[in-house]
Amino acid sequence: MSKFFSKKFRELVPYTPGEQPTDGRYIKLNTNESPFPPSPTVEKAVTEEIKKLSLYSDPRNSALRAALAKVYGVCLEQVTVSNGSDEMLNLAFMAFADKQRPLAFPDITYGFYPVFAKLNGIPYEEIPLKEDFSIDPDDYTGIGKTIVIANPNAPTGLSLSLEEIEKIAADANRGGNVLIVDEAYVDFGAQSAVKLVDSYDNLLVIGTFSKSRSMAGARLGFAIGNRALIEDLDTLRYSTNPYNVNRMTAAAGTAALQENEYYMENCRKIVRNREKTTRELRLLGFEVLPSSANFIFVRHHAVGGEKLYAELKKRGILVRHFQKKRIEAYNRITVGTAEQMDQLVQTLRALLEELQI
Amino acid sequence: MSKFFSKKFRELVPYTPGEQPTDGRYIKLNTNESPFPPSPTVEKAVTEEIKKLSLYSDPRNSALRAALAKVYGVCLEQVTVSNGSDEMLNLAFMAFADKQRPLAFPDITYGFYPVFAKLNGIPYEEIPLKEDFSIDPDDYTGIGKTIVIANPNAPTGLSLSLEEIEKIAADANRGGNVLIVDEAYVDFGAQSAVKLVDSYDNLLVIGTFSKSRSMAGARLGFAIGNRALIEDLDTLRYSTNPYNVNRMTAAAGTAALQENEYYMENCRKIVRNREKTTRELRLLGFEVLPSSANFIFVRHHAVGGEKLYAELKKRGILVRHFQKKRIEAYNRITVGTAEQMDQLVQTLRALLEELQI
Repeated sequence: MSKFFSKKFRELVPYTPGEQPTDGRYIKLNTNESPFPPSPTVEKAVTEEIKKLSLYSDPRNSALRAALAKVYGVCLEQVTVSNGSDEMLNLAFMAFADKQRPLAFPDITYGFYPVFAKLNGIPYEEIPLKEDFSIDPDDYTGIGKTIVIANPNAPTGLSLSLEEIEKIAADANRGGNVLIVDEAYVDFGAQSAVKLVDSYDNLLVIGTFSKSRSMAGARLGFAIGNRALIEDLDTLRYSTNPYNVNRMTAAAGTAALQENEYYMENCRKIVRNREKTTRELRLLGFEVLPSSANFIFVRHHAVGGEKLYAELKKRGILVRHFQKKRIEAYNRITVGTAEQMDQLVQTLRALLEELQI
Repeated sequence: MSKFFSKKFRELVPYTPGEQPTDGRYIKLNTNESPFPPSPTVEKAVTEEIKKLSLYSDPRNSALRAALAKVYGVCLEQVTVSNGSDEMLNLAFMAFADKQRPLAFPDITYGFYPVFAKLNGIPYEEIPLKEDFSIDPDDYTGIGKTIVIANPNAPTGLSLSLEEIEKIAADANRGGNVLIVDEAYVDFGAQSAVKLVDSYDNLLVIGTFSKSRSMAGARLGFAIGNRALIEDLDTLRYSTNPYNVNRMTAAAGTAALQENEYYMENCRKIVRNREKTTRELRLLGFEVLPSSANFIFVRHHAVGGEKLYAELKKRGILVRHFQKKRIEAYNRITVGTAEQMDQLVQTLRALLEELQI
């Protein structure tokens, strides 16, 4: 830290992203990426853009937003885009929460939420998940705060029904507060709240191309909501980085949306692999939470979470372990291809035998 | 604006980017883009990355930073990168200025500085340029503020010498303040302050690939400075968007740096076109400020700035006019290819004849 660093940020502890080894030696099941490549026309669309790289991108992102609006059945003015959904989450936290309007989110959820809150000087309450790691909608009603819920939640994989989300949205609406639903993993089995945005002017849905659309490396996030909410996000976007989505990513995203069925079929494959892996790991004595996401959250009664993580890494498989008291016995394992999952199950079976469990 | 928008931002007036027509009908001399395409290996490097798009990028950006460090003659730890230099400027404003440590920058400069300042609630002083639009270094000594200077300055194109920059850096250093030098246009004729970063631990140099390196549409900015300053910027980067530079842009930037001479030769072409255009416009009665950038700042005693902008647009040439009292008589014209500049001069000659000037 330099002596010039603003006092505001001296205590800030940044988010720790999952390991991103660059040597390709691992079966990488640690950051919830898709094991499938982008759809065929993405390459062509990007290649076309390279020729125009010397020109700024369209700050309104009209083509990309039109494609999103079409797929999600909303108007152009109800959509805006960002350099990955992390950027959008940060803009939404800035826009709709502050010292006078604190945040509320679960105690176990995406680890970036408290970082965004601290970065922006926003007080926040962490509401404990129930004993079984589920979210109780009643914990989020009548609280008078801006609410952030990941649905499905991470790293648990558990989801709320659309009715439960609506209950929270309606209550927050009466109280004059925004509900932000982070739907990074929605395509793997939860119901999207996008269909509620016309009914609740306080509901903001945030999505990403990083998981179901095989574009983590391209960085593309989006928000869908009432047009006044979107306008506020754009005011901040134009005040921080108007050209936040580069030409290549915009073209890749637009092309991907035109082949949406390819990605939805990939999601169905992931769901099949997830269900099969869940059954197999349970047979090995693992507790596996019922997941609606492209990852599973697992623990074994006889092996600690950190030990399991380390043993798998030694054997060439990367999973994600969180150093947090309540979940330290668990690991989050991304669901990959059928082959990767077979390898995982075999490796775990051998490991348990070795440890004489 | 929604009723949910934070009071902090209700008065915020975002930056207005230059027009970005998507129909390709104009000779586009309004946003200081390069008229030259990226170097040949950029396309190959990007195409390689498309296959890996499903995987997150390297949040440390090691390959790209190593390439930057090599070209600029600094260590890896003295470099960080961003999604365009606007993002880096915002991070630097956040890191090194606050209510207790206000900002100072010229009254006529990059219009985004006051927006970043307001966004972050940082008080700022706008120090008037001298009558001839030059910066007087003495205006920036002994002021006890975080200083931001674009060198060359925009939209004037005027530059400070390295000695003048050093004078400001040394004085700010004694006062315990940071000097941010925004070198977006440095490759077109000014001296870079990068060679001073080992001598002044308060000096941060910000650069971009948007102008001299033909990558405005890819979004790539960087900062070079003392490693403690870079560490502070990275603390904020990891607290807002750790994967801020996508795979394709990182690959394009790394490839571009390996062919740096191609870009420096393009800069020399731009300088030749700039000098020729300057002479020709002066013969037509234009006042043209002596530019060290890839644009010229011009006015004509007999035609208003806004009228000139509008008449050129009618004739298919886009330039940039700013609605700001002190410079409303002027237009900023990007220096393009020799052919584009010939077209500009011919169009202006015909226009003046038409207007009987």
